[in-house]
Amino acid sequence: MKLIEGGVCAAKGFKANGIHCGIRKNKTKKDLALVRSDVPAAAAAVYTTNLVKGATIQITKNHIANGVAQAIVCNSGIANTCCAGGEATAEEMSRITAEAIGVKTEDVIVASTGVIGQPLDLTPIAASMPELAKGLRADGNIDAATGIMTTDTIKKEAAVEFTLGGKTCHIGGMAKGSGMIHPNMATMLVFITSDVCIAPALLQKALSGDIRNTFNMISIDGDTSTNDMVTVLANGMAGNTPIMEENEDFTLFMQALNTVTVALCRMIAGDGEGATKLIECKVSGAAAEQTAKTVAKSVICSSLLKAAMFGADANWGRVLCAIGYSGADVDVTKIDVAFRSAAGIVSVCEQGVGVDFSEEKAKEILLQKEIEILIDLNDGSFAATAWGCDLTYDYVKINGDYRT
Amino acid sequence: MKLIEGGVCAAKGFKANGIHCGIRKNKTKKDLALVRSDVPAAAAAVYTTNLVKGATIQITKNHIANGVAQAIVCNSGIANTCCAGGEATAEEMSRITAEAIGVKTEDVIVASTGVIGQPLDLTPIAASMPELAKGLRADGNIDAATGIMTTDTIKKEAAVEFTLGGKTCHIGGMAKGSGMIHPNMATMLVFITSDVCIAPALLQKALSGDIRNTFNMISIDGDTSTNDMVTVLANGMAGNTPIMEENEDFTLFMQALNTVTVALCRMIAGDGEGATKLIECKVSGAAAEQTAKTVAKSVICSSLLKAAMFGADANWGRVLCAIGYSGADVDVTKIDVAFRSAAGIVSVCEQGVGVDFSEEKAKEILLQKEIEILIDLNDGSFAATAWGCDLTYDYVKINGDYRT
Repeated sequence: MKLIEGGVCAAKGFKANGIHCGIRKNKTKKDLALVRSDVPAAAAAVYTTNLVKGATIQITKNHIANGVAQAIVCNSGIANTCCAGGEATAEEMSRITAEAIGVKTEDVIVASTGVIGQPLDLTPIAASMPELAKGLRADGNIDAATGIMTTDTIKKEAAVEFTLGGKTCHIGGMAKGSGMIHPNMATMLVFITSDVCIAPALLQKALSGDIRNTFNMISIDGDTSTNDMVTVLANGMAGNTPIMEENEDFTLFMQALNTVTVALCRMIAGDGEGATKLIECKVSGAAAEQTAKTVAKSVICSSLLKAAMFGADANWGRVLCAIGYSGADVDVTKIDVAFRSAAGIVSVCEQGVGVDFSEEKAKEILLQKEIEILIDLNDGSFAATAWGCDLTYDYVKINGDYRT
Repeated sequence: MKLIEGGVCAAKGFKANGIHCGIRKNKTKKDLALVRSDVPAAAAAVYTTNLVKGATIQITKNHIANGVAQAIVCNSGIANTCCAGGEATAEEMSRITAEAIGVKTEDVIVASTGVIGQPLDLTPIAASMPELAKGLRADGNIDAATGIMTTDTIKKEAAVEFTLGGKTCHIGGMAKGSGMIHPNMATMLVFITSDVCIAPALLQKALSGDIRNTFNMISIDGDTSTNDMVTVLANGMAGNTPIMEENEDFTLFMQALNTVTVALCRMIAGDGEGATKLIECKVSGAAAEQTAKTVAKSVICSSLLKAAMFGADANWGRVLCAIGYSGADVDVTKIDVAFRSAAGIVSVCEQGVGVDFSEEKAKEILLQKEIEILIDLNDGSFAATAWGCDLTYDYVKINGDYRT
């Protein structure tokens, strides 16, 4: 398995494009992205658990209820959430897209991200759709990945190449997540494509299983968006023996999918609003998987710990504190904590009690861009990783600014 | 019932003092506080639910297991948490205090707040205890309230006078909470005194009931400290008919207690680390009390909403978002939201959909120091209030700075 370029266009038979259509005032920012598979593809998706849901969520659910989709359309700028008539708007956006690219309306995955409570005007989308559709191409992945960015500072793409029964296969994806130009909330959108032939039910199983350890283990600010969505399209154009059961090929597919999703998770967390650092919390020695997950996520969600990481302060008491209030059943007298980065590793707590360590060495370690917080619960064999970022002045600035 | 001055000395028979003993380097900051009742008092307490607990928590639990205590000693600067031998240190601190003021060691409530993982050296406490004890006086409440402050920018005291069966009674209290000079975590400590005569079991019942609607409804940053503690001493010196059952006097006592605790809650939340504003989220129309509480607390805990309040941005989508992911069972299509302050009121969302409003008026309202977020779930008759603050550059600064 090797990482390759190409994002959502890495898999055979996928074309993409992204343009500025006019939803946003800033004409240098793309605000509409389109992805099309040459043939109908097996489709799977997971959605936000927020009770307040963007209108596109329901429409996409309807469209992929039969396990098949062929295209993705996504705008940024307006979330199409908490607006009267939002679902009709999302359905019409799908119809406009379908008509322009020659697919069925019910085979379009539709997504929006942006300000809540403002109506989405389809006029610029309809006007630009012919141009967007005409520009679809096999190297359009960067335009598409750019088209879904908001306050993201880097485009987020990942892809892998692997082999199933002698056939070269691919999984690629693009993501957005960290906030918006009209900062409203950090909607996370992830679109994954593959040329693997796999039954829709298994594709859904692979995705639902994977996100429990990947996207559900990210937090930028603890706020679950109303518009989160992760979708996978697998169009079968790799020519592999169809994956119809949980066999070795399915395991390989899961591994390939996980390689792509972890890469996207790290990009999303490290590019959190205002973030200067990626924080990876790796918990081991847990008595149960859920314990490891609960602990890891509690640590990366702690505002105090996040602020300490911004200040490169080895304030490990905040790690212990976040473990203690996480709700996980742990024996605090067994916990070891260390900080690790490219600059080295420093142990700061053993068996729940502080140990002497070099503050200078700790500072050097914490001044790196990617920090690992290693927690050994010394209580079993389960492990989990969570991804987050530091809390910075810029987070406050981005989210405190007026919606203009 | 009327609010009065006097804090922990408002009730008859309570004397207090606070000094700088040397735990902190900054000599202008007090770091040790003492409160003494002339006679043994009924005692009740509630503690942090964090599995990582400060050593003083267990010692105070031991000391008031019999429902009686007579004094409170509290230091700031060092938390005495995650240190070998911490409980022996807390017990010795109680003994030093007891000896100096002529009470039993097991009648001392002991508390600490400060950096985790560093040992608490009792030398300065022992050396200063005679001076601290000698200075105990009926107007020493301000010194005591100042002695427990850390990054608090205002001292936090409240007291009420009320009548039980013709006898004038008092409840007063002091609190600290928002962070530390060695910023580590926002330990909340609250010490309440009363001259009411009440059975210890009823005192505990009153406190445990009250905090569910008061201190447990505050959040500065979502981090539950390892050292949180709320205690009440009631010494009976008001001469009221002893409260031995849940009668009318008990109800009056509960109301008086609540008046003090709500006043302290507002002070703690409004003085959160780096905060420029008090945010009160008032939820009404809930189908159940827990629903109202869950919604209110989710809103004041949202980093995005807190940052928007800092920026005086009427970004109500974040309120809806926080309601939606709170876990509460609500019908989002019924929700009304308004912002209110001394500058007026503005409705921003009705039945889950945005309404036109004056951004200028909203800005004016949100530029005030105390903001109410009014949420009507239109689904029942239960209500709840939660208290929080905005998220500011200074929060990041205070908590990102190195522990020096």
